[in-house]
Amino acid sequence: MSKTREIHLVRRPNGILALADFSVAEANVPATGDGEVKVQTLIMSVDPYMRTRLNADQALNAPLLGGGIGRVVESRNPKFQEGQLVRQGVGFREVHVTDGKALSPLVRDPALPLSVYMHALGGTGITAYGGLLEIGKLKDGEQVVVSTAGGAVGSVVAQIAKIKGCHVVGLTGTDEKAAWLRDVARLDAVINYKTQNLPDALKAAAPKGIDVYFENVGGAQLDAALPLMNVHGRVPVCGMISTYNGGGEGVRNLFNMIYKRVRMEGFVATDFAHLNAAFVSDMTGWLKAGKIKYEETVLNGFERAPEALIGLFEGKNTGKMLIHVAD
Amino acid sequence: MSKTREIHLVRRPNGILALADFSVAEANVPATGDGEVKVQTLIMSVDPYMRTRLNADQALNAPLLGGGIGRVVESRNPKFQEGQLVRQGVGFREVHVTDGKALSPLVRDPALPLSVYMHALGGTGITAYGGLLEIGKLKDGEQVVVSTAGGAVGSVVAQIAKIKGCHVVGLTGTDEKAAWLRDVARLDAVINYKTQNLPDALKAAAPKGIDVYFENVGGAQLDAALPLMNVHGRVPVCGMISTYNGGGEGVRNLFNMIYKRVRMEGFVATDFAHLNAAFVSDMTGWLKAGKIKYEETVLNGFERAPEALIGLFEGKNTGKMLIHVAD
Repeated sequence: MSKTREIHLVRRPNGILALADFSVAEANVPATGDGEVKVQTLIMSVDPYMRTRLNADQALNAPLLGGGIGRVVESRNPKFQEGQLVRQGVGFREVHVTDGKALSPLVRDPALPLSVYMHALGGTGITAYGGLLEIGKLKDGEQVVVSTAGGAVGSVVAQIAKIKGCHVVGLTGTDEKAAWLRDVARLDAVINYKTQNLPDALKAAAPKGIDVYFENVGGAQLDAALPLMNVHGRVPVCGMISTYNGGGEGVRNLFNMIYKRVRMEGFVATDFAHLNAAFVSDMTGWLKAGKIKYEETVLNGFERAPEALIGLFEGKNTGKMLIHVAD
Repeated sequence: MSKTREIHLVRRPNGILALADFSVAEANVPATGDGEVKVQTLIMSVDPYMRTRLNADQALNAPLLGGGIGRVVESRNPKFQEGQLVRQGVGFREVHVTDGKALSPLVRDPALPLSVYMHALGGTGITAYGGLLEIGKLKDGEQVVVSTAGGAVGSVVAQIAKIKGCHVVGLTGTDEKAAWLRDVARLDAVINYKTQNLPDALKAAAPKGIDVYFENVGGAQLDAALPLMNVHGRVPVCGMISTYNGGGEGVRNLFNMIYKRVRMEGFVATDFAHLNAAFVSDMTGWLKAGKIKYEETVLNGFERAPEALIGLFEGKNTGKMLIHVAD
């Protein structure tokens, strides 16, 4: 029986994540039985949503819940062929043997790199697409503000809104990301909330108010957006990254929702399975036409997943945070 | 030209309302011209929504924006007859002359008292009805929590939910209101948030979670409800009375909206004109059948409107707060 590695949560995090909350554990790889396949992980996705699960449904001393792309390296299941690419949501395991029920075949467009299937054409992309278009009910030409616009989801949200002819303001926390959003993603305005007075800057950048505020942060950014919401404005709540670690100020401006009839609604990417065909078609076209630009932050090495997750909450990524495990 | 009185806002309130923010101003009553009617105010409605307008669209040194019921005392307009009852939204004026465009005839069911047309069969009632059924999308038998359940809107919301077979928990701030909600309105559970530990008490009172949290308060009550919301739970936001005066703690538990796909949505009663026929029919039936109980707090005297509005934010009312002006 060969050995492999898994990333485990070893204790419940208390506030800010620490490396000691995690371990790189050795595990056995059983022989591939009848009807089973062995999968080698190639890429793993590191996402903000993982933080809340650490204090919720994530089991201790078990593989960290998360997704990735793998390659079938041995198949005794007629539904899979050796060498085939698959999406996997089996937790952070370097190699695993499975009956294949949790795998879904990945059909790669040869003109696009594999990593894009982990963000713009993966969970990140459909989160942005469904959150903005279905939960946010975006209409062409509306006024849009995107929090964490330099992040994986936010950068896609902002660019879809630009494709739809909207006036798009991005909020970000570094000048590098601000420059990328302005010069590469071509947003109408970008605000660095760490160096600018956010309420004043947002008011100036969104002179026609806000029809859709895409929420990934909570706290002070939500409080800056709420007074500017237009009547029947929408706030799709993708994340509230400022509150996951238990810190941050409370939100004080929710009363603005009443007269403006603002709708604020949480969602998760798995709600959007019914949008998948439209999403893949739209997004593949946009990527090939160069209408959606992206950045990746790739850490090399399976064992660096905890560092990547911690770094995500310190703003160390530009665009999608990925772990490269194998080619 | 005879004289009348008006309630004016004379300065923008800063936090807690003060009597000195208002004045009782003398005004002239012009002669009733061709096409005009003269209306004597009988009852005025004092509502939480009025607070936010004081720092928004309420003009200074002009009649306080608010509604009531009046009687036509002189008519030179063929659409109105002397003695006819009308709903009026002309601001707090004791007598006024108008072209009648802002008046709507009130058809009173003789079995019901006039005052009920200011709450259960008025703006309060349709706010409760539309907020719970249209924005809250209440389904029969669901788990419901109502804030300010002892208030004008909340007490109707709670009883409609009971009529729909729901498990209903009411939140209130006095033992008297708690007793009324338990013994008269027959709620399943009542919590006095001032004397009980709200998060613990709510968890115990809502063992199957919350499908609809009817929001009138904000702050700590919203924070207690959010972690208990069921998947696809709804939070119709009718008011956030704890935040109107600029005080109160910020809301920290909004992140619970994400995985639970909670929808939180503001609304105002004027959104529900399309529901009016169904509302009047349902509510008249419920009132006559004794299925909707109500309390009123009536202050006698036009000049007491500021006192009533201030008292509303000090919890001095039981049920609907009204000013009786004339018979």
